[in-house]
Amino acid sequence: MSGLDTDWEEHPVLLDHRVYYFIMHKLLILSKHESLYRSLIEKARLPDLTIESTLTPGIDIVFGEPDRIAGALASLPALSWVQANWAGVEPLLDPATRSGREYILTNARGVFGGLMSEYVFGYLLAHERKIFQRAQAQQSKKWDNSLTGTLRGKTIGLLGVGSIGSEIARTAKFLNMNVWGYTRESETSKHVDKYYHPLDSDSLLSAQQHPQGTRAAGLQNFASGLDYLVSILPNTKDTRKIVDSNLLNALPSYALFINVGRGSVVDESALLEALYQNKIAGAVLDVFEQEPLPKDHPFWTTPNLLMTFHTSAPSFPEDITKLFIENYKLFIEGKPLKYQVDFERGY
Amino acid sequence: MSGLDTDWEEHPVLLDHRVYYFIMHKLLILSKHESLYRSLIEKARLPDLTIESTLTPGIDIVFGEPDRIAGALASLPALSWVQANWAGVEPLLDPATRSGREYILTNARGVFGGLMSEYVFGYLLAHERKIFQRAQAQQSKKWDNSLTGTLRGKTIGLLGVGSIGSEIARTAKFLNMNVWGYTRESETSKHVDKYYHPLDSDSLLSAQQHPQGTRAAGLQNFASGLDYLVSILPNTKDTRKIVDSNLLNALPSYALFINVGRGSVVDESALLEALYQNKIAGAVLDVFEQEPLPKDHPFWTTPNLLMTFHTSAPSFPEDITKLFIENYKLFIEGKPLKYQVDFERGY
Repeated sequence: MSGLDTDWEEHPVLLDHRVYYFIMHKLLILSKHESLYRSLIEKARLPDLTIESTLTPGIDIVFGEPDRIAGALASLPALSWVQANWAGVEPLLDPATRSGREYILTNARGVFGGLMSEYVFGYLLAHERKIFQRAQAQQSKKWDNSLTGTLRGKTIGLLGVGSIGSEIARTAKFLNMNVWGYTRESETSKHVDKYYHPLDSDSLLSAQQHPQGTRAAGLQNFASGLDYLVSILPNTKDTRKIVDSNLLNALPSYALFINVGRGSVVDESALLEALYQNKIAGAVLDVFEQEPLPKDHPFWTTPNLLMTFHTSAPSFPEDITKLFIENYKLFIEGKPLKYQVDFERGY
Repeated sequence: MSGLDTDWEEHPVLLDHRVYYFIMHKLLILSKHESLYRSLIEKARLPDLTIESTLTPGIDIVFGEPDRIAGALASLPALSWVQANWAGVEPLLDPATRSGREYILTNARGVFGGLMSEYVFGYLLAHERKIFQRAQAQQSKKWDNSLTGTLRGKTIGLLGVGSIGSEIARTAKFLNMNVWGYTRESETSKHVDKYYHPLDSDSLLSAQQHPQGTRAAGLQNFASGLDYLVSILPNTKDTRKIVDSNLLNALPSYALFINVGRGSVVDESALLEALYQNKIAGAVLDVFEQEPLPKDHPFWTTPNLLMTFHTSAPSFPEDITKLFIENYKLFIEGKPLKYQVDFERGY
């Protein structure tokens, strides 16, 4: 390890045999936590790497927040790899922003599953355990020993089952819950008891011809048996407003909806209507169509709606730096990087 | 199964070989859920059992709430087994109440671990995830995206590690936490990373001679490294006020204390002082010295104190009935019953 992590100046004797060591890579960090990231990366003493402070020529690696990176892309002609420190990379997906250049985009994955899971089960337990109701009883000096609920035996439905969904599924199984998953077609998580997909109600027509209809039929079957619906979907053209009035109407009236994916996935007026008409028991939203949520948005005061201001899975710099270091080592060895984003698919 | 669960009238042919079948057992159910328990037990069609409705002679088995059973003990001369549907059996431990008669006392165990665990991690997550703070921000229409905390990497200390403590420990390990346990001497849970016991600071003196002093030293070492302290201790002479000012002072100021065991374990005035002086970050209490808590008790309005009115682990009749059925089958076969209480030890 120490040999790998040490730069060439300390091992001049190796130089004759490792000429490729002369290819120095130039890294630019574009982040609100730039100095923290810089010190964490410097501590790793990665070989053949200089960290630049400005947009100097020859920068081939950029690391940081997708929105900051998007604005700098046009000034990075030598770019070959971008490591995003978020999971969502929408700002980098716009074909106009890409300016036709090819680079590898990797995002942050694997580190958010545990955090998202804590968030989801924290709010599910707050719901079942009546955490707010008991606090109100305390304020009224009322001994409220009404029966508590439990997660055990309940059914959680995951809209989207990637690495985060699979981690939520794993936790749900640990807590003795039933886990259903809705995906376009993948069935990769072994922690999902039952998968649902878009239903081709008319076998003569392909899913391409009737994408909305078949999606709705599959979603309705999925939703009708749930106690909790959790969306972890990214923002893509296929996921827009997938949580619409059809889906919300299909949920049982005692169901709770949690959105930790992207706000664009929800038809906000349909959700408002579902909450005002008690079609579902409640909603917990971490993400919104527009963030920060405008002051005049009805969500602030909607009954049975809790909001958490995009905090469900913070990018802890230590976690993300580990990802970058791992990928950098693969990068200099010419190996495929982890967590590459497919620009067409959008995740 | 159906043969075993069927009473003798349906199998007269077996009678010649099974004369012991004529010993009918008489069960009395003393519970606020009597009719539900009766129907659940009847459904099991247990052999050689009649369920009585009143204190008729010959009742040898009693099932129900310890406080109700304690009041009836004097009228149950033929009693040989009591199955309590709670974990705590204090009302039955008083030697005066026992009236010198010998019977087997079994309590409800194994069923509460998962429920207690949900409670503990529900409140720990509410704390780390700032669930109340974010709800207040929402009321003020404030976009509060301050960094969230996480359970991962935190250290939870368990005061008492029996079947419930071990289940909490298992969940904590699943959530990537460090788990410390404080017990008199047992080290039975494999989910505890590090055990602490009463410390014999002067090896010339036995623990019997200095029980308070050695207990305090061991507890102080245990407490000083914790993020969360959870008491699952039963009410015995050895556990009374074990959570005193020494223990609370040894906790870090960011520590949270949760009591799901028994209220008698806490020195309530020491806890009040610790909370008012911010010596610890907060407390979550499910149990109290006196229940229901008197209206004029200071706990109702103590800052950073949440209370939950003895609801952490309800006795769901379906769970408890399973235990009774399992033990009844052992009982008629003359085998040792599960979860027997040691009257001297108190649990």
